[in-house]
Amino acid sequence: MSAGWFRRRFLPGGPGGPLPAAPRSPRPRASPVPYRRPRFLRGSASGPAAPDGPRRPDARPVRCPARGRALPWNAGYAEIINAEKSEFNEDQAACGKLSIRRCEFGPEEDQEWLTLCPEEFLTGHYWALFDGHGGPAAAILAANTLHSCLRRQLEAIGEGMVATPPPMHLSGRCVCPSDPQFVEEKGIRTEDLVIGALENAFQECDEVIRRELEASGQVGGCTALVAVSLKGKLYVANAGDSRAILVRRDEVQPLSSEFTPETERQRIQQLAFVYPELLADEFTRLEFPRRLKGDDLGQKVLFRDYYMSGWSYKCVEKSDLKYPLIHGQGRQARLLGTLAVSRGLGDHQLRVLDTNIHLKPFLLSVPQVLGAGQNADTQHTGEGRQSHRGRAGVLR
Amino acid sequence: MSAGWFRRRFLPGGPGGPLPAAPRSPRPRASPVPYRRPRFLRGSASGPAAPDGPRRPDARPVRCPARGRALPWNAGYAEIINAEKSEFNEDQAACGKLSIRRCEFGPEEDQEWLTLCPEEFLTGHYWALFDGHGGPAAAILAANTLHSCLRRQLEAIGEGMVATPPPMHLSGRCVCPSDPQFVEEKGIRTEDLVIGALENAFQECDEVIRRELEASGQVGGCTALVAVSLKGKLYVANAGDSRAILVRRDEVQPLSSEFTPETERQRIQQLAFVYPELLADEFTRLEFPRRLKGDDLGQKVLFRDYYMSGWSYKCVEKSDLKYPLIHGQGRQARLLGTLAVSRGLGDHQLRVLDTNIHLKPFLLSVPQVLGAGQNADTQHTGEGRQSHRGRAGVLR
Repeated sequence: MSAGWFRRRFLPGGPGGPLPAAPRSPRPRASPVPYRRPRFLRGSASGPAAPDGPRRPDARPVRCPARGRALPWNAGYAEIINAEKSEFNEDQAACGKLSIRRCEFGPEEDQEWLTLCPEEFLTGHYWALFDGHGGPAAAILAANTLHSCLRRQLEAIGEGMVATPPPMHLSGRCVCPSDPQFVEEKGIRTEDLVIGALENAFQECDEVIRRELEASGQVGGCTALVAVSLKGKLYVANAGDSRAILVRRDEVQPLSSEFTPETERQRIQQLAFVYPELLADEFTRLEFPRRLKGDDLGQKVLFRDYYMSGWSYKCVEKSDLKYPLIHGQGRQARLLGTLAVSRGLGDHQLRVLDTNIHLKPFLLSVPQVLGAGQNADTQHTGEGRQSHRGRAGVLR
Repeated sequence: MSAGWFRRRFLPGGPGGPLPAAPRSPRPRASPVPYRRPRFLRGSASGPAAPDGPRRPDARPVRCPARGRALPWNAGYAEIINAEKSEFNEDQAACGKLSIRRCEFGPEEDQEWLTLCPEEFLTGHYWALFDGHGGPAAAILAANTLHSCLRRQLEAIGEGMVATPPPMHLSGRCVCPSDPQFVEEKGIRTEDLVIGALENAFQECDEVIRRELEASGQVGGCTALVAVSLKGKLYVANAGDSRAILVRRDEVQPLSSEFTPETERQRIQQLAFVYPELLADEFTRLEFPRRLKGDDLGQKVLFRDYYMSGWSYKCVEKSDLKYPLIHGQGRQARLLGTLAVSRGLGDHQLRVLDTNIHLKPFLLSVPQVLGAGQNADTQHTGEGRQSHRGRAGVLR
């Protein structure tokens, strides 16, 4: 991606040429999402060269928060922009304190926000990494928005998090005398409300990104990896192929699992089985060790379908020669020949090149949320996806 | 279920009255599937009373294979018919040696079966439990058929199981010089072919059951739990809520996980989200701690949707008062108010009472297959679902 394109697209008033003519739109376009690095990098230092010293040609300048500006929990962060391949980066990060205000419930008409000193109700901490693709806009929007969505979700259920177990009705009214028993039988705990809030926040943020990108005529998507510490517990929500790990002395424990076309093959194939229209006769949902060609016709080759974790042989028909729904191996594996991840935010308008096939029904914005138990005595680390290890921002 | 009904329905020439008049059918009905106990129980002994001794009224007669008739691997089996609640049982079991013949491949027109002495190619062992519901017919058909389906599936890929790794083409021809490399990169092993054969065998058997039950005008379904020992490895395929465990001295290891409306909630809710027509406006896909009623309208109550492993609150609308897609708790949990399991064979005609809503798209015949590694030094045990522990057949 050229620096000039980036400037024209994302840096209003930048040195680039005029914006390309946009197609006629019935309403005025919103401003494009301006490009920036994570907020906490303001006034950041670049290494390894000293600020005014000569820069070695082989040195990759690492950006990290300015000296003396501590992140919550003394967290650290370092990034090299796009492994120095370009001037701009599609990835983003965010961190901060999460202040949850109290919502007091009386009769419906008396409900009002009592915005007490935030610390009086609940405070938590929030760290997030967003690995962008197709432009930086989705990752920037996610870094600007997801924590607000989460705060809103948590505030909306605040009263539910105070009681143990959570009440059936948020108002605390008991419609049926056995309500507490029903809740207890389902084993619903306060932690489940935090997990639900994270899941809903991802949905809400995805919708915000859809609206904003549609309004500004921009495109793109990003993965999202979020770590939240709340009420003495750590939660990790992941949609994409980033990874969180927990480091305890010598022990390293994964706190998330990656969602890629390979790890989610059966879910993706099953959706295509239930809804074959989604493939518009352009793709085959079956997996083969490689893409088939004319010479394979009539032969029995290895394959697997949505219901199989094992492999079998099938006689190759003409329809098997279509491009596979999931194709490639390891880091080269692609969903509909287009995306390397199967979960993330944004990408609402993403289609397979030269077709009307949308990625979105296969691409989920649903995170997997894992609780990592108590915070005490632990260090936690969220890092960019494996392939970025050498350069990605690390929260530690 | 009355013994009289069973006799009329499943025991041809039994002492029951004439069969009820069947609706006119364009083709002659096939004979109903005759009722029987597992084949290996022929000449079986009943305990605890001696064959001719007086029977204690509180004693439950246990049926097990006749003395001196050893099952493969000296496996054991014991059953009490339907916990003595009735004379007949909807459950079935099967076990035996699996003899896989060799299929030699030459040019297409020269292909022929070389039915060698079965032992010359591959032999394995097979144990299976089928927990029937809605009549015994599906379980009987599964016990009669599934092992043949598996043998057929294994014979069809026999040549593939000889090479390591399996060849891309079953014929052994190499269309593309890199084919072995593609197969190796995908990590495909001989074990994956056995797993694939088990998965396909379940599909094939489900189709046989559909055809047979449709032809004979019968209904019903069953779970299926299969353990197979082949080429020195043990495989367990499970569709339903039966359970296999591996006992090694003091250590007990589960070899299968149960598939119930509760354990598969998210898959089932997601299908209803993608295909709301399946619920015909009669059910809500949302889960609540209990069924909602008019008094809950407008209140914020605990709920979760297909994308949530956690819980949140939502404002109750009229559509939330519908009967839930999954309702009840623990062993009382039901799919569409009808079934306690979410995977199994049969049930193609099963609908929600007084509606046209089919169970089948939610109810999968797909098993989960787990390989339990080497057979050596292990005992394996397949037992009926937990609730049957006291009385179910045990293969040991």
